[in-house]
Amino acid sequence: MSDTIRIGIAGYGNLGRGVEAALARAPDMKLAGVFTRRDPAALRLASAGVPARGMDDIARFAADIDVLILCGGSKSDLPEQGPALAALFNTVDSFDTHARIPEYFEAVDAAARRGGHLALISVGWDPGLFSLQRLWGEAVLPDGAGYSFWGKGVSQGHSDALRRVPGVKDAVQYTIPSEQAMARARSGDNPVLTTREKHARECFVVLQAGADAAAVEQAIVTMPDYFADYDTTVHFIGAEELRREHGAMPHGGCVIRSGATGAGTRQAMEFSLRLGSNPEFTASVLVAYARAASRLARQGERGARTVFDVAPGLLSPKAPAELRRELL
Amino acid sequence: MSDTIRIGIAGYGNLGRGVEAALARAPDMKLAGVFTRRDPAALRLASAGVPARGMDDIARFAADIDVLILCGGSKSDLPEQGPALAALFNTVDSFDTHARIPEYFEAVDAAARRGGHLALISVGWDPGLFSLQRLWGEAVLPDGAGYSFWGKGVSQGHSDALRRVPGVKDAVQYTIPSEQAMARARSGDNPVLTTREKHARECFVVLQAGADAAAVEQAIVTMPDYFADYDTTVHFIGAEELRREHGAMPHGGCVIRSGATGAGTRQAMEFSLRLGSNPEFTASVLVAYARAASRLARQGERGARTVFDVAPGLLSPKAPAELRRELL
Repeated sequence: MSDTIRIGIAGYGNLGRGVEAALARAPDMKLAGVFTRRDPAALRLASAGVPARGMDDIARFAADIDVLILCGGSKSDLPEQGPALAALFNTVDSFDTHARIPEYFEAVDAAARRGGHLALISVGWDPGLFSLQRLWGEAVLPDGAGYSFWGKGVSQGHSDALRRVPGVKDAVQYTIPSEQAMARARSGDNPVLTTREKHARECFVVLQAGADAAAVEQAIVTMPDYFADYDTTVHFIGAEELRREHGAMPHGGCVIRSGATGAGTRQAMEFSLRLGSNPEFTASVLVAYARAASRLARQGERGARTVFDVAPGLLSPKAPAELRRELL
Repeated sequence: MSDTIRIGIAGYGNLGRGVEAALARAPDMKLAGVFTRRDPAALRLASAGVPARGMDDIARFAADIDVLILCGGSKSDLPEQGPALAALFNTVDSFDTHARIPEYFEAVDAAARRGGHLALISVGWDPGLFSLQRLWGEAVLPDGAGYSFWGKGVSQGHSDALRRVPGVKDAVQYTIPSEQAMARARSGDNPVLTTREKHARECFVVLQAGADAAAVEQAIVTMPDYFADYDTTVHFIGAEELRREHGAMPHGGCVIRSGATGAGTRQAMEFSLRLGSNPEFTASVLVAYARAASRLARQGERGARTVFDVAPGLLSPKAPAELRRELL
């Protein structure tokens, strides 16, 4: 491996473009190639001189890439690509289907060990930075309660669910945390908060021609898992307004831990994010962890890892003595 | 080593008592001994059945302690105790004189390697959890600006400085962050904030009989390093009021990182603490890192480390698979 960390991007959607932009701000890393399932000749990369290649050819470039950042989706891309590519490359991905992380970890771990590679899974802000804050909260204040709130922001999974409702042409869904619930979480009273109390869901929906608005709304607000357990508001708007007013991908949220020490002294920790672009921020986290993955691989580590396994100093381009002097 | 992590406490002041209380909430750890420079027979421990011993005897108990938590002060205790005790035990300390961390690290590192031990230095919330947030901020949003604010809370160092002023009998100093400066740090405009703009200092002072209040106030507000660069307010109060109103040790603060991704998208990260008791919270962080120190030592790691070197999963009593399932 050369001193500059050579990064490959697998998948060139919003997340892949975010990784490309984040790499431009990392002086110790360079983009060595973009891999796509689309026609590579049709790809317009932002970076000059970087080759675009077909995903089918990717195995041929194993010697050119120190860490491959997987930018596919968690629903159908990563369950297949994660293990397959971890057998060929050191990888970092943002697999975010929380309930399936254990099985995904096992599949990627086996493939990475077989191939002699290191694979960092479920990197981003949740799972990722939020997970770390949950862990700290619990480790430092074991006698307490933890809360995660998301939003206000666009949930891709819930927007996709809206688009699958018959009669819906296009849609965007915002997850909105309850200010009142956040205040109660911060209070130190360790309240038990229901799903409905914590978040509301607001939907902006473009109907197909001739669709029955009332039926669509009913189908949405009663949809199990996605909407039935929440206070859900549905707004019907035009396609032009959806594009104009709801095209950005802001997000954010907070992790609150409140607990007691000593004879009942109250202590509170809180981490919050306000993100102008969810995919660009996730991409920035992926790039920092790709630096760590490269270092762990060089140290001979093999198999799957998560953010819980990565010493924070490995994320920085600075040397340990520099970090102690400047940031400790 | 037994499965239960056997902890020793070196120094039984506010911090040592906080460690004792935090250990009572850690089912995988137990307090094996308290070491003091005072008369051990005079020590009233909160824990039943735990021996109190003289610090001079500490070397005799090396086989009984997996990790020794150093609870002395950074000004005069730790510079001497840190290296001396790291030669005999695995240690964790909260050395917090930021400017002297590099030399302290070197001294402890050499001693720990000589003795075949692991020493985690500068653990707490700042240095400690705040340092980690500064590192993440920089690693994830390199094109940005970072800010640390402290308070409102009692600064032990500044309170001590007040007590050294001729004519002062007793005193407490609060560090107060500027709401306006915090708002500007959060704005995303990456302002350059002066020392005076970021924090104010409020002093509650009990005068010695016959002292000249005006001269004391002048000596305080012009004191270099501690007060001259800040807007400092001095209140003269009675000894009883000081004890009654200013005896608690609340603290807190926040680390703000604001930066740009992509073509200038604004992203913001913030970590904040609201602490009912500074020493009890610091002690809780020390105990979580003592767990990590024990694990690193068992893995054969030797020498000095900081929070930057510790994989977060090591702080939790839970197994890696449990952490992935529950917290990732």
